Amino acid sequence: MTKKKHKNSALKVQGGIDQPSQVNPSLSGGLHKFKKANLSVDEIYDGIISNDRTMLGRAITLIESSRSEDKEIARRLINRCLPHSGNSVRLGITGVPGAGKSTFIESFGLNLIDKGHKVAVLAIDPSSTRTKGSILGDKTRMEELSTSPAAFIRPSASAGTLGGVARATREAVVLCEAAGFDIIIIETVGVGQSETAVSQIVDFFLLLMLAGGGDELQGIKRGIMEMADLVVINKADGDNVKKAELAKRQYENALHLFPALPNGWTPKVITASALYNTGIDEVWQIVEEFVQHTKENNHFEKHRNEQSLAILKESIEQGLASGFFNSQVVKPLIKKYEQEVLQAKINPYEAARLLLEKYLEEIKKS
Amino acid sequence: MTKKKHKNSALKVQGGIDQPSQVNPSLSGGLHKFKKANLSVDEIYDGIISNDRTMLGRAITLIESSRSEDKEIARRLINRCLPHSGNSVRLGITGVPGAGKSTFIESFGLNLIDKGHKVAVLAIDPSSTRTKGSILGDKTRMEELSTSPAAFIRPSASAGTLGGVARATREAVVLCEAAGFDIIIIETVGVGQSETAVSQIVDFFLLLMLAGGGDELQGIKRGIMEMADLVVINKADGDNVKKAELAKRQYENALHLFPALPNGWTPKVITASALYNTGIDEVWQIVEEFVQHTKENNHFEKHRNEQSLAILKESIEQGLASGFFNSQVVKPLIKKYEQEVLQAKINPYEAARLLLEKYLEEIKKS
Repeated sequence: MTKKKHKNSALKVQGGIDQPSQVNPSLSGGLHKFKKANLSVDEIYDGIISNDRTMLGRAITLIESSRSEDKEIARRLINRCLPHSGNSVRLGITGVPGAGKSTFIESFGLNLIDKGHKVAVLAIDPSSTRTKGSILGDKTRMEELSTSPAAFIRPSASAGTLGGVARATREAVVLCEAAGFDIIIIETVGVGQSETAVSQIVDFFLLLMLAGGGDELQGIKRGIMEMADLVVINKADGDNVKKAELAKRQYENALHLFPALPNGWTPKVITASALYNTGIDEVWQIVEEFVQHTKENNHFEKHRNEQSLAILKESIEQGLASGFFNSQVVKPLIKKYEQEVLQAKINPYEAARLLLEKYLEEIKKS
Repeated sequence: MTKKKHKNSALKVQGGIDQPSQVNPSLSGGLHKFKKANLSVDEIYDGIISNDRTMLGRAITLIESSRSEDKEIARRLINRCLPHSGNSVRLGITGVPGAGKSTFIESFGLNLIDKGHKVAVLAIDPSSTRTKGSILGDKTRMEELSTSPAAFIRPSASAGTLGGVARATREAVVLCEAAGFDIIIIETVGVGQSETAVSQIVDFFLLLMLAGGGDELQGIKRGIMEMADLVVINKADGDNVKKAELAKRQYENALHLFPALPNGWTPKVITASALYNTGIDEVWQIVEEFVQHTKENNHFEKHRNEQSLAILKESIEQGLASGFFNSQVVKPLIKKYEQEVLQAKINPYEAARLLLEKYLEEIKKS
């Protein structure tokens, strides 16, 4: 297989699927071939380590699969790749539809590749459907970046729960890092719950905004602004430059009202035009400054360790909750107690205690 | 018992204890007497309903108790009081030490009492110790308000976990409402995790700030600003008036950058001086406007229902997590897996799965 073929097949997958874990002719054909060849974990691993992007794409599909046989292979694959992971800068990029995310990531990604980096772009978008608005679902997006041999672009695993999507994304990061990508960009739409999940994966959070009377902000979820390490006012070109500079000062004032971050970093605001490729260099300079700053004060590693332990803790909590809320015995009782709580017939704490009692009895019987 | 006696005994409790659930000569004396009299749930209930503030104070102590016999009485008491609860406006008031919370609450509370309201002030402060800085721990605080027969002031149940303190506070709200208090103020220090817990209890969140170069904000936890329905710039008196007006405009600009609240309320910013009693009337006007606005669009009740269901869900999740993390079998394994996760030997998701397996086995055996 030549590089060209890898690219084409990757593009086909990108353009064709929004929901990789659902049945899709081109994809299931791929999986079928994958299985027919009866590739061992070793072979997939070798492919990833040698930067075979087709193999990487298929490995991510495997991770997203809900079939138990796939899960077992995925588990072993991740364990093999884990020691080769961690050597990248992980960037979260978010912004409402219209902020120009695709153009920005394309411009930014190509700039990084020019500097000799290898860039992987992943997306989290649990709300995505096949209709317009879904991120990375458009074949025409990031056309130039997606054809670069130093880039890997992967659409969102949009099927399933947010927890499942977040897990698949984090495991995809591990695989991309093992494949040698040293900059991982994780894109979200900025309107849902995804940003909290992304903040558990990335080192640096970039918020892409537009200049304007504040109306554009209506779609941004509360709390996202406070997560930003850098706010980029995009589309600062032509008639828009003055408005963008004004917006920059407004955001600077607003960020100034937030308390300092524990890592000692002061969030920055800049203007840029992805279309005219201005300010893009500065974005990377700021990321590098952040990485140097947090590596010097040990917050870079500390933050990653905290993320790992938080994921361990949350996965345990989610596992416990999932067992409880899916219990056939408890389910009808929850509805009943919810009604009684709303009617002030029972204290919610007391209702919780009674439900937990029933659940424990049930587990012991099983 | 005369009203006067009630007041004195309430004051004694306020001044004397920061940690009501710990042994304290004056308090255990009270409990002793309480038990000696062998009061039934009916008698305590009757006392509360007839607005006997001494009985109310003791009932709250009972709720905070960790003794299983007290818990059973508390449980039955809450169930009796629940149908009489809900008829108040619940206000959260937070601000860093130095923002003038005590003076503000005293001035605000007396103003409300003048209008014919009955005001209860509760506090959440899980970090409090007997040293200075603990809220409501100072006998001299809110001296005038605490002697008013239409006020009830209760120091924080500061011992125990945040979850435990939040529960005790929410149950104290139920008791205060049953006792006829129609405005419940819940005070927090604004530097901890307490505000999220409070947001699950209150209808309206007031943030008390000072004018200044932004340094005062360093102590405010990230995310609190976005919870505010009203920001009051306090100490807007004398030389400070101009600075306060400037701060008001800055906060207005900052709040403007946040997206709209689901209830359609636009957070407000005003200046006030609790010391000179200016702006205090306006605070209550804004609260009334908020209540009218959210009652008209049904968000008032919707929000309370969401709070109750959220507490039910979180209590279940906390109960499940507490069983897991306190399991003698799992405890040493958690440490082991945490280390392996940090050394990239195992995927945190996989570690969680294995730990959950062990835990379920353990429960079934027990």
